[in-house]
Amino acid sequence: MDKGLLIVLSGPSGVGKGTVCAALRKRLPNLVYSVSATTRKPRAGEVDGVNYFFKSHDEFKHMIEHNELLEWAQYVSNFYGTPRTFVEETLASGKDVILEIEVQGAMKVKQQFDEGIFIFLMPPSLDELRSRIVGRGTEALDQVNQRMLTAVDEIKLLDQYDYAVVNDQVELACDRIISILQAEHCRKERIMPKIQQWIDEVSK
Amino acid sequence: MDKGLLIVLSGPSGVGKGTVCAALRKRLPNLVYSVSATTRKPRAGEVDGVNYFFKSHDEFKHMIEHNELLEWAQYVSNFYGTPRTFVEETLASGKDVILEIEVQGAMKVKQQFDEGIFIFLMPPSLDELRSRIVGRGTEALDQVNQRMLTAVDEIKLLDQYDYAVVNDQVELACDRIISILQAEHCRKERIMPKIQQWIDEVSK
Repeated sequence: MDKGLLIVLSGPSGVGKGTVCAALRKRLPNLVYSVSATTRKPRAGEVDGVNYFFKSHDEFKHMIEHNELLEWAQYVSNFYGTPRTFVEETLASGKDVILEIEVQGAMKVKQQFDEGIFIFLMPPSLDELRSRIVGRGTEALDQVNQRMLTAVDEIKLLDQYDYAVVNDQVELACDRIISILQAEHCRKERIMPKIQQWIDEVSK
Repeated sequence: MDKGLLIVLSGPSGVGKGTVCAALRKRLPNLVYSVSATTRKPRAGEVDGVNYFFKSHDEFKHMIEHNELLEWAQYVSNFYGTPRTFVEETLASGKDVILEIEVQGAMKVKQQFDEGIFIFLMPPSLDELRSRIVGRGTEALDQVNQRMLTAVDEIKLLDQYDYAVVNDQVELACDRIISILQAEHCRKERIMPKIQQWIDEVSK
């Protein structure tokens, strides 16, 4: 059984990772979406093990200390992280797993899963990036410029990724990601073991 | 202007390279198909510069001696080869070029265009390969076995390629090749120069 592929979908904040991931989920129902662990309380309708693995602070600390998280981060008073076992077991069962994650988390995953496929979701243009940043609130020009610098700093991290997918339209971005998955499944490294079987069979 | 991609479609003899290439031509009309040079005489309806560049033996020898061919081979008394200028100029104009070629020729192209995308077209199974070989003629079992060994020897060359595409159905094989092209256009190396422009613009 071939191992599945780990796909890490990341990109600067505000680029539309969540929207693209939700659209992808509809088009690729067999792709497994990594479920994060969190210490925040479940909202109405959220199911443990589906939306999140809901953990107490003590449980989360235990996971950190026992290296059970591929990456984790704290936002305000809550912790979020990616459970290692879920990802590893799903890949071992031959299924592809997708992780939607911010750039710092993606870089931590890369240190441990360099064979993963790292896809960077990009805004279509600098103007578009600016209008998304401006569109969010009523910051002063100084603040907008500061956030542009931060966003471009995040975009520099593209260099650490394998692919850049422009999010001009959600369905087009999905098309590109689906093509990347199909292409990666055709990489010669994945087919060579089968060829070795053929060689053995013909030579005997 | 981005340079185009060079796609080299190859594979063992009898795998269906010509059929897949013809189907691809219908689906990707903007892809440029490399035109071979040959010393054989034009057949009825064949147009110089479209089907082949028709050359005299002297002209062909001149091309060989002046390194104007990416690769060439002799079949019976005729010569066939890939003109270098046509490929290089098309790539420089930003268009993708596809080269359909047997495995020895593909390896010669690789020595000169390592940045090309080398796609190996494969039979779906060893049984299918055998039935295609048997189906061709009325060879004795010895000969069939010998040709199987030769075919598997060619298949071993997959190791030198980037991708393996199984030719189980022509349209599915085309789907895979089209995905590979789309994915290669998303490679971060192709997008980084644009990002550098953004960085320069925001920083000034």
